[in-house]
Amino acid sequence: MKGFGVISKGTVAWMEKPDPICGPFDAIARPVALAPCTSDVHSAYEMEGPHLINRILGHECVGELIEVGSEVRDFKVGDRVVIPCTSPSWCYPAIQDSYHQHESGLLTGINFSNYEDGTFADRIKIRSADMNLALLPKNMKPETAVMITDMMTTGFHGAELAEIKFGDSVCVMGIGPVGLMAVAGSALMGAGKIYAVGTRPDCVALAKEYGATDIISYKEGSVYEQIMEATNGNGVDAAIVAGGDLETFYMAFGVCKPGGTVANINMFAEITSFDIPIEYSGGGWLGHKTFRGGLCPGGRRRMERLIAVVQAGRVDPGRLITHRLHGLESIPDALQLMVNKPRDLIKPVISFE
Amino acid sequence: MKGFGVISKGTVAWMEKPDPICGPFDAIARPVALAPCTSDVHSAYEMEGPHLINRILGHECVGELIEVGSEVRDFKVGDRVVIPCTSPSWCYPAIQDSYHQHESGLLTGINFSNYEDGTFADRIKIRSADMNLALLPKNMKPETAVMITDMMTTGFHGAELAEIKFGDSVCVMGIGPVGLMAVAGSALMGAGKIYAVGTRPDCVALAKEYGATDIISYKEGSVYEQIMEATNGNGVDAAIVAGGDLETFYMAFGVCKPGGTVANINMFAEITSFDIPIEYSGGGWLGHKTFRGGLCPGGRRRMERLIAVVQAGRVDPGRLITHRLHGLESIPDALQLMVNKPRDLIKPVISFE
Amino acid sequence: MKGFGVISKGTVAWMEKPDPICGPFDAIARPVALAPCTSDVHSAYEMEGPHLINRILGHECVGELIEVGSEVRDFKVGDRVVIPCTSPSWCYPAIQDSYHQHESGLLTGINFSNYEDGTFADRIKIRSADMNLALLPKNMKPETAVMITDMMTTGFHGAELAEIKFGDSVCVMGIGPVGLMAVAGSALMGAGKIYAVGTRPDCVALAKEYGATDIISYKEGSVYEQIMEATNGNGVDAAIVAGGDLETFYMAFGVCKPGGTVANINMFAEITSFDIPIEYSGGGWLGHKTFRGGLCPGGRRRMERLIAVVQAGRVDPGRLITHRLHGLESIPDALQLMVNKPRDLIKPVISFE
Amino acid sequence: MKGFGVISKGTVAWMEKPDPICGPFDAIARPVALAPCTSDVHSAYEMEGPHLINRILGHECVGELIEVGSEVRDFKVGDRVVIPCTSPSWCYPAIQDSYHQHESGLLTGINFSNYEDGTFADRIKIRSADMNLALLPKNMKPETAVMITDMMTTGFHGAELAEIKFGDSVCVMGIGPVGLMAVAGSALMGAGKIYAVGTRPDCVALAKEYGATDIISYKEGSVYEQIMEATNGNGVDAAIVAGGDLETFYMAFGVCKPGGTVANINMFAEITSFDIPIEYSGGGWLGHKTFRGGLCPGGRRRMERLIAVVQAGRVDPGRLITHRLHGLESIPDALQLMVNKPRDLIKPVISFE
Repeated sequence: MKGFGVISKGTVAWMEKPDPICGPFDAIARPVALAPCTSDVHSAYEMEGPHLINRILGHECVGELIEVGSEVRDFKVGDRVVIPCTSPSWCYPAIQDSYHQHESGLLTGINFSNYEDGTFADRIKIRSADMNLALLPKNMKPETAVMITDMMTTGFHGAELAEIKFGDSVCVMGIGPVGLMAVAGSALMGAGKIYAVGTRPDCVALAKEYGATDIISYKEGSVYEQIMEATNGNGVDAAIVAGGDLETFYMAFGVCKPGGTVANINMFAEITSFDIPIEYSGGGWLGHKTFRGGLCPGGRRRMERLIAVVQAGRVDPGRLITHRLHGLESIPDALQLMVNKPRDLIKPVISFE
Repeated sequence: MKGFGVISKGTVAWMEKPDPICGPFDAIARPVALAPCTSDVHSAYEMEGPHLINRILGHECVGELIEVGSEVRDFKVGDRVVIPCTSPSWCYPAIQDSYHQHESGLLTGINFSNYEDGTFADRIKIRSADMNLALLPKNMKPETAVMITDMMTTGFHGAELAEIKFGDSVCVMGIGPVGLMAVAGSALMGAGKIYAVGTRPDCVALAKEYGATDIISYKEGSVYEQIMEATNGNGVDAAIVAGGDLETFYMAFGVCKPGGTVANINMFAEITSFDIPIEYSGGGWLGHKTFRGGLCPGGRRRMERLIAVVQAGRVDPGRLITHRLHGLESIPDALQLMVNKPRDLIKPVISFE
Repeated sequence: MKGFGVISKGTVAWMEKPDPICGPFDAIARPVALAPCTSDVHSAYEMEGPHLINRILGHECVGELIEVGSEVRDFKVGDRVVIPCTSPSWCYPAIQDSYHQHESGLLTGINFSNYEDGTFADRIKIRSADMNLALLPKNMKPETAVMITDMMTTGFHGAELAEIKFGDSVCVMGIGPVGLMAVAGSALMGAGKIYAVGTRPDCVALAKEYGATDIISYKEGSVYEQIMEATNGNGVDAAIVAGGDLETFYMAFGVCKPGGTVANINMFAEITSFDIPIEYSGGGWLGHKTFRGGLCPGGRRRMERLIAVVQAGRVDPGRLITHRLHGLESIPDALQLMVNKPRDLIKPVISFE
Repeated sequence: MKGFGVISKGTVAWMEKPDPICGPFDAIARPVALAPCTSDVHSAYEMEGPHLINRILGHECVGELIEVGSEVRDFKVGDRVVIPCTSPSWCYPAIQDSYHQHESGLLTGINFSNYEDGTFADRIKIRSADMNLALLPKNMKPETAVMITDMMTTGFHGAELAEIKFGDSVCVMGIGPVGLMAVAGSALMGAGKIYAVGTRPDCVALAKEYGATDIISYKEGSVYEQIMEATNGNGVDAAIVAGGDLETFYMAFGVCKPGGTVANINMFAEITSFDIPIEYSGGGWLGHKTFRGGLCPGGRRRMERLIAVVQAGRVDPGRLITHRLHGLESIPDALQLMVNKPRDLIKPVISFE
């Protein structure tokens, strides 16, 4: 098989590897649509470790099955499937207790390109096919579906972690593709006011389309002060961190009401500590602000659920796509787009048809 | 003061009463918009008891304050306010534990026309004004806001009680105005498929507009069988009972998956027992189906929250209004509409301007 | 292999079957301690269906592994293990959504003696060993551990389903072994008053030991009236149905406060409908009473968690044991004890050492 | 009236003030039992601000009513009452949404000695008597009850915030009186292993009595490493911070499993920022660790609930008392005990009888 990945920190390249072996519960797919992600950039250029040497990148994919294990019940060769970024083995007891993202240790369920080869390849192995794959509906475009696998599930998870209730005021810090999906997810959990923090015109326009009621720009002054002013000094019921730096992070605590909730879905790849001034932490963290963070729920039912949401017409994650490329050979260009981040980029997609 | 209400079971009439006395925490309003409700019909014609003798009916109202108690902090004469159907005194300890609808006993917080005179009057007393009233936004029509006070808060509560999550399949039994709001609330909590059960063409059209993906009609056969077939025998994640009879009630259990949730927001005014065949109760009620029921969350924050949802453009409860009347003297006609239920009726409203 | 089970409705007998085949994820145990359960009586004498023909009974067991599948990671031959009554395969997507008891349909995870042969045998096959088995701690008696596998997990689940909070008043209807564990579980979730409903002296004494503060006997008059009087007419925050008949069932609704919770962990094997008078259903089921029911959470982590609770000295489920038998050949006598229910019986156990 | 409090930062003294005026919903009590708290030391010596000038200290009290407002329903002169540390007015709409501790802004419900005069006085005014007071049961010692008002409600809140479930492994950092109550609360929510971190012999003994299974001492090496070793590198399901410094705080994150919960009930009075190394924050705060913090739930029902727990014999908070003083004049000595913290001190109490 052929794939594109990281040779060593900072060096990406094509690589040849032996074809993956399809275990009895596994499936092998060829890509139908792929997308690169900022996490791929982190993995390639910012992080290091033995798991990131000669590792094929990529974790957003819609595929067509070319091989199916003997014990797979519900899928067959030729099926077009949505492949979740998080595809655990589902055979560790920790899933009986807690988040499947960490089934046998921190982030172990988010395997593609971290603990196993990723989706930037001509053959993609998915473990526990019956537990992870979802059928692509006939009337859903593969490029739309590929937006579900990480962007939508992570952004929507931000809204879930923030426990949005009817009429909550919400602040979404950062309106890249994940933040935009957090806006859409917050709207779809019944938020009232949604303050979206960002500046790029295409993102601002799409944030409004997805349900943001107010746009806050750091260019207009302190984000903290703008939100406190907009909420009459009360702050918001919930804040979602979907981008930015350490200051963004602690401002999210600051703008959140006592009793409110802060959710983090942003990877801070380059800091060594979270230094949070006490004036933002709510009475020395006695103000009943709940904080939690985590990424991309996966598995079959999550994919089926989000597919159902899209099919019902409640949100169109395909609106995120700004750049379209074609074929395996366009992977390096697609990844480079994520590095360069041209001002009009929200999300690129690679089609194989 | 003058009001319209129930003299004794089955007899409605105008009545004169002494003007209400405004306590230090209370406020008195004149009506700006009113709406009658099926509950008023139940109170007038189907229920009885000493609390329903010489009782002014009505509980859906937007008003203008004409008097304000000495201890009221946030409201003043002339303010236009949304008056929740449920307006507790908020001074019983049970609210520290549980639902404010039952602050000092079953349904005691749903006071208008039950335990105190209602809103079908030229003067309406609201207790604990700071805790119950919400300002009517300048750009919101009173007739839209009056739909929030009971229909929207109750219908949305159905979705809350059913604990809708992203991608849940939902069945809403009954698409009168409360059921329609349950459809909208389910969509706004991120449901996938919404099966709306009903037949009246105007309601069917509005159910689709509010987010129903499939319409089920009892005229096409057993509702139970249709929903089981549509879900490949799996049933739905959640069912909301917003109308119908005892059979509807127990079918809601039947169509709900093991582990699913059934919510009841329908008043069964004329039955004496709930007789539920064991084949619908999920393995003799060992199938982890959760059931709960209750009506109209109220109070100030609830109204402010739902107003924020409407202001954000997420749903328009004003679409429920099919019939418009004018002035106090039209109250009997409006109530009679609820009795007659012409086929094109969803919700009437009475304007005072 | 040799086992004792139901030949056809009403007829129990020894049977010879081929030895079970150990799949790659499975394990085979010999029994170290067994217990019969009222559910075995239901299966043998009250229920019927093709799944109850030539079916080995039994589902409470501690065993010693005599064979282990090639893919089993954490267990080896000779390990002594606690075998949960509910031991799903954990490979159906429904477990990603909801209760594992129903992983591929109603009650499918509660497999022993229902969908697969049970534990009344000299060889017991456990599927998905790594996901279901828990090591028996060296200092825990097998007979104590066998009380965890169904009685403790089910009784404690009653308290979980009832969502007991600090200081809740709780009514437990029925103080057989499951009800006693519901008393202990309620106490261990921080209940205040626990009203235990029952009459048998040994059960009454043990209920007090496990944390009941008040004993209610139907012999003293209406259970409903006694509880309402004891709570000054307020009712209880939570009621757990762990025995009794249809009247018990609907009285549990009746004694529960508005906003309270009713949990059912009782199998109603002989009724055809639940006929609930409206005066017990809380304002026609608009009183925000939550109801849910279901049995015995299983799997490895559940067993490990309950073992940890016992090891910490918080409760001793071994106190349930009133009758001790020995060896495979005593199984028919043990089952007969559950049929006869002598007045001093709480729970028998069969030891193999 | 006469009281003892803070004149200005660092200076405590007796002060004379006009007698409190009893509003219609208020009550005035004389003290029957009082206790000083570490928070009083923080208020007197470490914090400053206009609200801490000429402010009577104290917030833990059992009293006897000497005056009752005209609108008080449930209490009369002569009643002995448990007075919660947190006694909101319950008339701000924020209580409809969120924690009553912050009813009109951060910590505004924790009024005694912060925003109103405290309980170190011969007359104590309690606002909203019906909503805040609980009757002292005839058979409960006042000194036991005074331990409920802050220590027990705060410590138990730690367990609630940490969302302890059956069999959770829990780490409690700090075993002063609040930490000891967090141990007891965790045990009473069904924890399995409880690792209590502390060294003072009396506290260690009492921690074991309240349910700790393991004692961890910083004198034996890194607390983080000891707990990780004790849990085979897995960490704990929940950690409660009830004392210590910034390192304690971030180690609590470190020892918590992915998907676990960290609760803070410790006041960090002397730091200016929370600097948390990324190795303790769970994958850059993407490990689904939930964090929340806050103090002493109050109000009438909370007191009644905790009284019920004590009356049921589930825990005895009176075991915290190590030093007994007598009469108003002993207040300065009692406060000085909290400053000096002799090695055998857990909690002093002042009796008035």
